Amino acid sequence: MIVAVIGTGVIGSSWACLFLAKGLRVILTDPAPFAKQDFARFLETTWEVIPKNEIAAGASKENYQFTNDILPYLNEVDFVQENGPERIEIKTKLISQIDAHTRSNVIIASSSSGIPASQFVHECKVNPSRVLIAHPFNPPHLLPLVEIIPHPGSSNSSITKALEFYKALGKTPITLNHEVPGFVANRLQAALNNKAYSLVSRGVISAQDLDTAVTNGPGLRWALNGPFQTNALGGDGGTAGFSHRLQHLGSEIQKWERDMAEHRFDWSEAALGSLTDAVGVYLDGVDPADVKRERDRRLLRILELKRL
Amino acid sequence: MIVAVIGTGVIGSSWACLFLAKGLRVILTDPAPFAKQDFARFLETTWEVIPKNEIAAGASKENYQFTNDILPYLNEVDFVQENGPERIEIKTKLISQIDAHTRSNVIIASSSSGIPASQFVHECKVNPSRVLIAHPFNPPHLLPLVEIIPHPGSSNSSITKALEFYKALGKTPITLNHEVPGFVANRLQAALNNKAYSLVSRGVISAQDLDTAVTNGPGLRWALNGPFQTNALGGDGGTAGFSHRLQHLGSEIQKWERDMAEHRFDWSEAALGSLTDAVGVYLDGVDPADVKRERDRRLLRILELKRL
Repeated sequence: MIVAVIGTGVIGSSWACLFLAKGLRVILTDPAPFAKQDFARFLETTWEVIPKNEIAAGASKENYQFTNDILPYLNEVDFVQENGPERIEIKTKLISQIDAHTRSNVIIASSSSGIPASQFVHECKVNPSRVLIAHPFNPPHLLPLVEIIPHPGSSNSSITKALEFYKALGKTPITLNHEVPGFVANRLQAALNNKAYSLVSRGVISAQDLDTAVTNGPGLRWALNGPFQTNALGGDGGTAGFSHRLQHLGSEIQKWERDMAEHRFDWSEAALGSLTDAVGVYLDGVDPADVKRERDRRLLRILELKRL
Repeated sequence: MIVAVIGTGVIGSSWACLFLAKGLRVILTDPAPFAKQDFARFLETTWEVIPKNEIAAGASKENYQFTNDILPYLNEVDFVQENGPERIEIKTKLISQIDAHTRSNVIIASSSSGIPASQFVHECKVNPSRVLIAHPFNPPHLLPLVEIIPHPGSSNSSITKALEFYKALGKTPITLNHEVPGFVANRLQAALNNKAYSLVSRGVISAQDLDTAVTNGPGLRWALNGPFQTNALGGDGGTAGFSHRLQHLGSEIQKWERDMAEHRFDWSEAALGSLTDAVGVYLDGVDPADVKRERDRRLLRILELKRL
């Protein structure tokens, strides 16, 4: 199977590593200067991080071709993962070109992290019903989540094929029934982040203590149980436990919600200034490379123990 | 050291198990019928879950006394963990009694999950400055987080003593600089939950897929890095990475926020009805006891690997 990876920024490069590790052949393209060399370097370091038992028999990190002009290759590919810039006009042009040059039943999956496909499929002449969003979670070669978001014209068979493709790669795809801004995972993150930004910019808590609160409390639980299962367990389990918790705590939670609405982070210059100052106190002494390496190492171990 | 545990519901019982495991002597009380037997049963099963290497030398699960009238014991205790019902009038009376009967330098920590201490210290005649909130995260014998929330009259030395007490027990306490409704961890959870309830009650995604999205995406990251470190890594790391991400994505995120505000879960009967129906489809076939056992087992392993 041959996959085209269009755009080799962080997300596209990480997808390409995953595809290679799973034994697929990959054709890549990206117009940026040094994109070919950057990808080669990214592949070298990332391949080392992927656990040996996750690499398919026969997979090879040489099984790719980087090209400046992908159009002549598109009629050979069996799946497209598009990772172009997050701009509607660029995506519209790119997706219509891919649509024009691929076989009409090939899935065109966009990694768009926020722009829904309905905003960029209108120039597809061949088959817009095989276009959908397949939004990974960074880094895609490690994190299992892939959000599949069809546009109103996406066919059910395209959704099914995309789900099967990502499941076969060991990913955990989920499906949205219709488009919403930010999709699901980024939307939920944004909701939490706004309250975190507000608390820290107002001096209620330090940025470091806020991070500690998440990683030692709700974050630990969310690695294992989502919000619904967590609510249910908090009320003795099951649907009855879920209802009980909402009835028992609902009026109190609504008070918190009113206070949060009143103190929402408003993205003003002043609020952004205090926020960045507070984050600086926390992060200025920390080496990002260390943090990333430790995160990747521990992520892999959590993923491993979740399978046991 | 002797700790008084006032109220032996889920939270109080779990605290008591932790204190016993760390080698402290515990005096417990709770007015509920069968509270003594319920605690004995809880202790038996919970003690098995606590890893052997977390149990202090000399600790014994027999090292406690359950009493119906704790007042005569209060002058002997060195620390109080109060876990009474979440009602202001009950807490006010309880805390003033504890204040009247303990030595004046003993910390009185309330497990209150939402009511700030300023609302229930006004009847303390001896020393309200040693009263503060120490809000654990369920289950306290496993999850490290303890939120310390002083009221405006809490002394710095009380805050320091409480921080030292919980650190010595292996917990991870954080400090809020002032009271906010829902404190930090529950407040952040409530922000995320409202958007989750909205998406599921409106049929955008199934409850099961939403939980899967969290446990395979943001939840995995939040077990290791909080929102600030995660944002920084998303923008190449450090304070510069954090600023870059906010500048780069801020206007897009504000669009998501507007859409979320427009579609907030409003707690109406209709919305609660659709939500509970959707959660039922997901949870009705699942055995809560299995979910809880698996969660506890995996939580312990994640906590272990985070120490490595």
